[in-house]
Amino acid sequence: MKTPKEIVDLMLEGDAFSRWMDVSVKKLQKGHCSLSCTVRSEMLNGHQIAHGGISYSLSDSALAFAANSYGNKCVSIETSISHLLPVKAGDTLTATCNEIHRGKTVAIYTVTIFNQREEKVSMFKGTVNISSEIW
Amino acid sequence: MKTPKEIVDLMLEGDAFSRWMDVSVKKLQKGHCSLSCTVRSEMLNGHQIAHGGISYSLSDSALAFAANSYGNKCVSIETSISHLLPVKAGDTLTATCNEIHRGKTVAIYTVTIFNQREEKVSMFKGTVNISSEIW
Amino acid sequence: MKTPKEIVDLMLEGDAFSRWMDVSVKKLQKGHCSLSCTVRSEMLNGHQIAHGGISYSLSDSALAFAANSYGNKCVSIETSISHLLPVKAGDTLTATCNEIHRGKTVAIYTVTIFNQREEKVSMFKGTVNISSEIW
Amino acid sequence: MKTPKEIVDLMLEGDAFSRWMDVSVKKLQKGHCSLSCTVRSEMLNGHQIAHGGISYSLSDSALAFAANSYGNKCVSIETSISHLLPVKAGDTLTATCNEIHRGKTVAIYTVTIFNQREEKVSMFKGTVNISSEIW
Repeated sequence: MKTPKEIVDLMLEGDAFSRWMDVSVKKLQKGHCSLSCTVRSEMLNGHQIAHGGISYSLSDSALAFAANSYGNKCVSIETSISHLLPVKAGDTLTATCNEIHRGKTVAIYTVTIFNQREEKVSMFKGTVNISSEIW
Repeated sequence: MKTPKEIVDLMLEGDAFSRWMDVSVKKLQKGHCSLSCTVRSEMLNGHQIAHGGISYSLSDSALAFAANSYGNKCVSIETSISHLLPVKAGDTLTATCNEIHRGKTVAIYTVTIFNQREEKVSMFKGTVNISSEIW
Repeated sequence: MKTPKEIVDLMLEGDAFSRWMDVSVKKLQKGHCSLSCTVRSEMLNGHQIAHGGISYSLSDSALAFAANSYGNKCVSIETSISHLLPVKAGDTLTATCNEIHRGKTVAIYTVTIFNQREEKVSMFKGTVNISSEIW
Repeated sequence: MKTPKEIVDLMLEGDAFSRWMDVSVKKLQKGHCSLSCTVRSEMLNGHQIAHGGISYSLSDSALAFAANSYGNKCVSIETSISHLLPVKAGDTLTATCNEIHRGKTVAIYTVTIFNQREEKVSMFKGTVNISSEIW
């Protein structure tokens, strides 16, 4: 069985969108993951704040890495996000994914994003299907 | 009061992320909006399918345009998305936002994305707060 | 393979809470179900409107019947509901469950509840896991 | 301004459904609330496990009490629940509501339910609108 790091390295290999977002892995263990990225002007919407899709994408990647880190391939079933505070260009976002429940076929995670001032900017919940396929 | 088109033109002005996604507005009226974009290789994750954040971002923009088109500024409170089918490079996505409910302060929308083969690839639900501020 | 009616009759047999709610099946076919019930004073909260759990329970039952009607046992994974209008004692609620997507292992449904004045009082979304076990 | 206890006493007064569920308040402070109830045979569905509406109702009440305890009337906008483990007759459920975010007009809470064996049986998220009306 591969280690969490080997699995996430495989997942990041050829992951062009994460490269575009310049995501870096801060912490990784089975069921947990922290990612960060810095918001650039290309990520802004017409209000000059980060598009909601940026926080969602970072959260969704943190979910994927945390859920897959056990070795079984996991597919996202349902995800939700609440945007709590506006994010600006230059802000550094850190997304932390925690495991709420891991059953035989379904697992649930939350991802909280904080900015560099330790303010909570979004809260995400994700449910995944755990397949029998191994990384 | 501005028209839906004037409001969305204002929202798209300076919206760098929508430009990066190359989003185009196909249909727009009060409470309804259709957007499309074509998936490029930079939007893919390590499985060589579109990152979940791409469908989310397109859905979230369709929500924003439909909700704001009445003239009152609306802020997203809670959004959820289920990814139903993988999306590949070259696929053209069309996101259609419909209004489920519009009360005095809260409105609810769904956004369904189809690919160019008329297959449903995602289902999104969004709740917004309707402010008294006018565009 | 049992018919949808045979399956739902089995599910309702010994379903004490549905009996307490006095739920009746109005329509049933594979992937679709309509249920109704009339709100009694025991179902009210301190505001003298129906407790949010009443609309949720009716929606959740409609989901269960629609999802299980194909013959494979289905277990709910994630459900969400938005309450749109207050419900009063004496109101008759009709919950209609429609299928949004049915894959191999996951299916998604929405349930809309209308009152006797054809006003939409809630919108529910439910995701289920489709097991290989047969009714 | 009324205290949290005065507000929740007012909310429970005439709350027939909470009386039917025999809900008791275990802990209460601004933004937090713990409730418990014991599952009876009338609360079961056809599988002889608690209907999903029971955990939902207990969670929704915990949300209402925690959110309203500051003194401003709050209305639920969107709620979601994942059922993690089956609940049986005789099980005692304890629902604990925690505040994730409280802004000017919107607040977000999670409610986790444990059974008497300290097993997590459900996870609920609720978003409320904070009105200017005072209890």
